[in-house]
Amino acid sequence: MRTDIEIARAARKRPIQEIGAQLGIPAGDLLPYGHDKAKVSQEFIRNLAGRPEGRLILVTAISPTPAGEGKTTTTVGLGDALRRIGKRAVICLREPSLGPNFGMKGGAAGGGMAQVVPMEDINLHFTGDFHAVTAAHNLLAALIDNHIHWGNALGIDTRRVVWRRVMDMNDRALRDMVAGLGGAANGYPRQTGFDITVASEVMAILCLATDLADLERRLGDIVVAWRHDRTPVFARELKAEGAMAVLLRDAMLPNLVQTLENTPAFVHGGPFANIAHGCNSVIATSTALKLADYVVTEAGFGADLGAEKFFDIKCRLAGLTPAAAVIVATVRALKMNGGVAKADLAQEDLAALRRGCVNLGRHIENVRAFGVPVVVAINHFATDTAAEIAAVRAYAAEQGAEAVVCRHWAEGGAGAEDLARRVVELAACPGAFAPIYPDGMGLFAKMEVIAGRIYRASEVTADRAIHDRLAAWEAAGYGHLPVCMAKTPYSFSADPALRGAPSGHVLPVREVRLAAGAGFVVAICGEIMTMPGLPRVPNAQIIGLDPEGRVEGLS
Amino acid sequence: MRTDIEIARAARKRPIQEIGAQLGIPAGDLLPYGHDKAKVSQEFIRNLAGRPEGRLILVTAISPTPAGEGKTTTTVGLGDALRRIGKRAVICLREPSLGPNFGMKGGAAGGGMAQVVPMEDINLHFTGDFHAVTAAHNLLAALIDNHIHWGNALGIDTRRVVWRRVMDMNDRALRDMVAGLGGAANGYPRQTGFDITVASEVMAILCLATDLADLERRLGDIVVAWRHDRTPVFARELKAEGAMAVLLRDAMLPNLVQTLENTPAFVHGGPFANIAHGCNSVIATSTALKLADYVVTEAGFGADLGAEKFFDIKCRLAGLTPAAAVIVATVRALKMNGGVAKADLAQEDLAALRRGCVNLGRHIENVRAFGVPVVVAINHFATDTAAEIAAVRAYAAEQGAEAVVCRHWAEGGAGAEDLARRVVELAACPGAFAPIYPDGMGLFAKMEVIAGRIYRASEVTADRAIHDRLAAWEAAGYGHLPVCMAKTPYSFSADPALRGAPSGHVLPVREVRLAAGAGFVVAICGEIMTMPGLPRVPNAQIIGLDPEGRVEGLS
Repeated sequence: MRTDIEIARAARKRPIQEIGAQLGIPAGDLLPYGHDKAKVSQEFIRNLAGRPEGRLILVTAISPTPAGEGKTTTTVGLGDALRRIGKRAVICLREPSLGPNFGMKGGAAGGGMAQVVPMEDINLHFTGDFHAVTAAHNLLAALIDNHIHWGNALGIDTRRVVWRRVMDMNDRALRDMVAGLGGAANGYPRQTGFDITVASEVMAILCLATDLADLERRLGDIVVAWRHDRTPVFARELKAEGAMAVLLRDAMLPNLVQTLENTPAFVHGGPFANIAHGCNSVIATSTALKLADYVVTEAGFGADLGAEKFFDIKCRLAGLTPAAAVIVATVRALKMNGGVAKADLAQEDLAALRRGCVNLGRHIENVRAFGVPVVVAINHFATDTAAEIAAVRAYAAEQGAEAVVCRHWAEGGAGAEDLARRVVELAACPGAFAPIYPDGMGLFAKMEVIAGRIYRASEVTADRAIHDRLAAWEAAGYGHLPVCMAKTPYSFSADPALRGAPSGHVLPVREVRLAAGAGFVVAICGEIMTMPGLPRVPNAQIIGLDPEGRVEGLS
Repeated sequence: MRTDIEIARAARKRPIQEIGAQLGIPAGDLLPYGHDKAKVSQEFIRNLAGRPEGRLILVTAISPTPAGEGKTTTTVGLGDALRRIGKRAVICLREPSLGPNFGMKGGAAGGGMAQVVPMEDINLHFTGDFHAVTAAHNLLAALIDNHIHWGNALGIDTRRVVWRRVMDMNDRALRDMVAGLGGAANGYPRQTGFDITVASEVMAILCLATDLADLERRLGDIVVAWRHDRTPVFARELKAEGAMAVLLRDAMLPNLVQTLENTPAFVHGGPFANIAHGCNSVIATSTALKLADYVVTEAGFGADLGAEKFFDIKCRLAGLTPAAAVIVATVRALKMNGGVAKADLAQEDLAALRRGCVNLGRHIENVRAFGVPVVVAINHFATDTAAEIAAVRAYAAEQGAEAVVCRHWAEGGAGAEDLARRVVELAACPGAFAPIYPDGMGLFAKMEVIAGRIYRASEVTADRAIHDRLAAWEAAGYGHLPVCMAKTPYSFSADPALRGAPSGHVLPVREVRLAAGAGFVVAICGEIMTMPGLPRVPNAQIIGLDPEGRVEGLS
């Protein structure tokens, strides 16, 4: 069997100008990066204003397990299939983070016959967007310490600098440090640390900004520190936002690539859906909607995290209306949700499958709570039995949803045509989309709505200090912001071991953070890591160049 | 008067494919980055083997002063002028570092009518080469700490990890830190720090490697730490070199851009000439030599640092033979060398000029010591008087060298045609180039040769520990390496205040470092900073986007 990278390398790619021409983008408005990647010009995007928009399809999933679900793969397969049945379709994916490739995570360009290419480039430096985010983020960090070094005219409380630094690398040694050592020439010693670049608020801002002016305004709104009197210090007080916007100017332009079947794909933006909102950029999605009748996009992790944030943060802030949602499930992952160990997944186990289906049922119910019609995609594995497939279909039918078997991993778009037809039907009669809480609700009440209606928790707990902080932010004019929940993706609860569809649990909000530039308040529930580490045997040891200079070992 | 960025923006750029076609590079072998930048493919470069080579012209300078000399500007002007007088010429420059743009340094794309474009891109992310170096460097750092975290099977002495991290930013707070804090999950606490990316040994390796296989071998040769028994730990023992080479694959390809007059320019590689060797990459220079009759390149700082390393490190290791050297001088900088304060430079002062000319004389003598013919370029400023110009010309003539007035800053290539004609004459009768010391000489003796013959020091001092270390490296098989002197650029001595042409001073070697992958031994003389800081009022505060999304404030 061929590996993903072998399949990708054998792709019959068309020149990126031809892919752009499919969408009516003139070659002069494509800034090429090599022959198979391009950015779309500011001017072209500006001139799209007023055009009618296509239908937005979200691909989300059941709660993830180590068995794998295939959300990106299904997004790619569905896009290819829509084109095969004669629809004008574009795919919108998130950009993979470079660092985790060298740990144990695979790439994020799909798999099998449903991939975007060039996969090596997309998984590594791509068009440099993440490097630009890293540079802009760290420039602001350097300006903060430099300001303090030269006399701290803004009166920053050096114990309350909340802006850390970032690197696109899994490097646990950088999580917690004392920097500024070595004497007066090196500034003031201060405890700080690094997060991974995708966790940066700058990344979230890039993904939510509608144009360069909005980007610069949001960068200026970032709260970098607090004064002794507890008033915020903004990035604009350091005059940082102009230079940061300069560093992000090209990164703001959506990246165009293609699938193995030459379907256009915008791969742009990429925050993690556990600590950030985890969606393709607003500028890419909005551009795609003006260029196609169907735009297929994904959101991170399971629907409790990714879809909820897609609806409550991205669609709310950008004024988008999703027409339908696909919930990806696999027989294997449902069996794991029903208690089967990973080693035993190849065996038929209808009882466990049935037990695990409650996880799917909960996600169906949740997505419908936003007024969005749902179809289930059963991402087919070779070990799935006919009886297992029938059981999932029957379960979905009981919930009033259709479950369609998809074989895009093995067959490409041809394997997802049934799904595509069902999506077209659903999108023809869209529901009445609405976020699950109104802007005007209090910040803690918003967390309670998500915890109650989506996670089915009986209670949300938080220290007095957190309530005080939220009240202070509401008083400072941040009460209208949506909340971005940071929680384990492996359970509806904050306990990753609680699979299936738990209810009545307690959701502990451990910490809250104000992302005033991005425009949301982060609620951290339980333990969430903002800088990953490398495993004992990292992938870096097997990644290398072959004698022809081609990349080996990425998947 | 128009600013550099205004002039650059008004440039009549040709599509990069046309610039490539001038050199016989087919469009398919150019990997475009936008419409005005491209990388040259591996295959094209590989197929150049065996072609005859053009003549290599080095542009170097007198000792730098705050008055400015214009080495890059003269390199660009000379390249344009050679083409105007009918020669096939290519320019080879170093890539600017992104970080210092936000401090107080101007960009490094030339100035006035002698620039390479697009200057904003070249000065900022360009084609991502520096970001790739940063990622490769920091991946190795993460692998080291990860190895220690998981049990340290290689027996690394955690007090003797010599591999730091890098960032392309002026950030003094990162110079010295204790990382790995916060408990067992974050690894072992260890004192470490960040250098600026251009100071990375990975950057030097990228600049010296002849192809991808050589790159990977050199990356594996990096010494990252020492064991308790004082044996070295190599990057290849961490199996890091393959993944690092993957990250650097595209960065190894030379970048093609153009001057304001559409002369082809390879802008590639960029270490600082104070702590590294500071030259355009070997792969870019070698490629250019196969594509043109004249290749004009530059080396960092004054000839005591840049030219010495160009000859003794780059030309030695890459087997290059320079045909001629241009020493750039300005009347203003010579007056500063003669003791005039910066505020008084606009006034004619023939006596001070004459006193400062000894600096020029010393550099002429030094370059000739390598067997390379010399011409002096007087980079003309509006305040220069006819008497001053005549005095410099007369002084040069006394040294047996011609000094040619150049007005490329104001007039472009047309202002440097006299210089171009003189360079063609000199290069027709090349001298007998040879490095100043043989490979077989001891490491400390090599330092003494450079200090004695180039710096005119009477003595080189070093602690016993340094002598022991050099002896150990010689015993370990590193004795044949050239030495890379890290010294202030402002004086022939290690004391930046000693201008002119001092002699009889003592050169203190404070520290030595083994760059086993790059293939040299660094000798640090006096205080050298490997991570700059930002000034009180950093340029970042004035850099921004105009309403059309164009970059403002770069120079």
